[in-house]
Amino acid sequence: MRNIQLILGYDGTSYQGFQDQGKGTKARTIQAELEKAITTLTGEKRRIIGAGRTDAGVHAVGQSVNFYIQAAIPLERWPYAMNAVLPPDIVVYEARERDPDFHARYMAIEKTYCYYVDNASFPSILWQRYAYHLPYPLDVALMQQAAEILTGDHDFTSFMGAGSSIKNPIRRITSFTVERELVPGGEAEGLVTGGLVKFTVKANGFLRHMVRNMVGTLLEVGRHRQPVAWVAEVLATKDRRVAGITAPARGLWLYAVRYDR
Amino acid sequence: MRNIQLILGYDGTSYQGFQDQGKGTKARTIQAELEKAITTLTGEKRRIIGAGRTDAGVHAVGQSVNFYIQAAIPLERWPYAMNAVLPPDIVVYEARERDPDFHARYMAIEKTYCYYVDNASFPSILWQRYAYHLPYPLDVALMQQAAEILTGDHDFTSFMGAGSSIKNPIRRITSFTVERELVPGGEAEGLVTGGLVKFTVKANGFLRHMVRNMVGTLLEVGRHRQPVAWVAEVLATKDRRVAGITAPARGLWLYAVRYDR
Repeated sequence: MRNIQLILGYDGTSYQGFQDQGKGTKARTIQAELEKAITTLTGEKRRIIGAGRTDAGVHAVGQSVNFYIQAAIPLERWPYAMNAVLPPDIVVYEARERDPDFHARYMAIEKTYCYYVDNASFPSILWQRYAYHLPYPLDVALMQQAAEILTGDHDFTSFMGAGSSIKNPIRRITSFTVERELVPGGEAEGLVTGGLVKFTVKANGFLRHMVRNMVGTLLEVGRHRQPVAWVAEVLATKDRRVAGITAPARGLWLYAVRYDR
Repeated sequence: MRNIQLILGYDGTSYQGFQDQGKGTKARTIQAELEKAITTLTGEKRRIIGAGRTDAGVHAVGQSVNFYIQAAIPLERWPYAMNAVLPPDIVVYEARERDPDFHARYMAIEKTYCYYVDNASFPSILWQRYAYHLPYPLDVALMQQAAEILTGDHDFTSFMGAGSSIKNPIRRITSFTVERELVPGGEAEGLVTGGLVKFTVKANGFLRHMVRNMVGTLLEVGRHRQPVAWVAEVLATKDRRVAGITAPARGLWLYAVRYDR
């Protein structure tokens, strides 16, 4: 059996998340669409494993999955074959053949998530499905300072979503940047323009809702409702109730998954 | 009666174009949504006039409309009031009070349209509703040369859509640029990335389908299927059948409308 890795992207707007909810549920998931496409192409019924189990409404440009298959479809044909049968809001970019022991989730050594805030007075047409519209002044420099407090090895219990059964809440954030970017298409004359505020966080793993909870917390600092030092307190308290809100799913993108080979 | 100008944007994907198709038709249009919103807010039933009658599926970031109204809603409240009742894929950015003789269409002295081609191997998730995906190598420098042939005062009959009843097919293109831009979100590791090719054309007016027909023609040059000089021949022939295809609506954006005051 070949072990195939696919690198893919999706618009998560119409999906109940990446992961199949199990037998008997009717939820539309990225996993179910991929498995259906593989069966359509090969006649084989295969379980796929995703690197990141993105929530409902979360998008991806660099998700990775793997699955075992007998079909002899050449590697370079996989993206074209899959894209021919997948819905248009899921796109396969690349296929790689992996050793039999490759596992898309367990062998990921680093994941990158980006979160986009549309900071214009009124929502950008282009970004309305893909960013969180927040029309208030945001202090990006202070949010960057606060992000650096979260960088490194920490117990991220304060940023873990309710109902998670993770035993070890320690993760290592290797980089966390906050920048303001111009909105493409936002330079038009006569248009009230703004910018996008982009949060980029790389870590060896993430707890449930961790990125969205960290972004919700940094936004409190960015709006000058809390000082930078408050983020250190939130982190130390290990209590979800003290952190900021969970930022909406639509602004979150799984950007990349890194493997050591 | 006040004469109000609104500057607005929309995602045209779900609409049958800007303009109302007349009584008895059930088509969903931008115009009908705007008129319904105005009636909801003011109780007044008003006809709006749009600067550009964009086709089905065409987007806008800088469309202008005007209408006469008695309601005393303060100017700065109009965008908020309209956005509160409009569907989320139509966004009002700004309101201006105009002289009684201001007419959004007749008094426009220049319009800017942009056309986006997603030139990556596989479609960008972000741009899939907003750009035409064309995964072939494109020679941007040659398309720019061809665009300059179209700049100036010309009879654009060769680029006019069928069924148009325009008497004077002469228009003045004041600028026409073709550039390659990076795709936002396309720099991720492990992702097959490409770029956007952006066509920007400013003119004193446009014939039906003129931008999409010019883009379809320039793309023939960009793909090296026709030489640059062919565009001059197409222009001189005044025959729609010799030009390139009509590029799909989804890549077209009404960017800005300029008035002399």
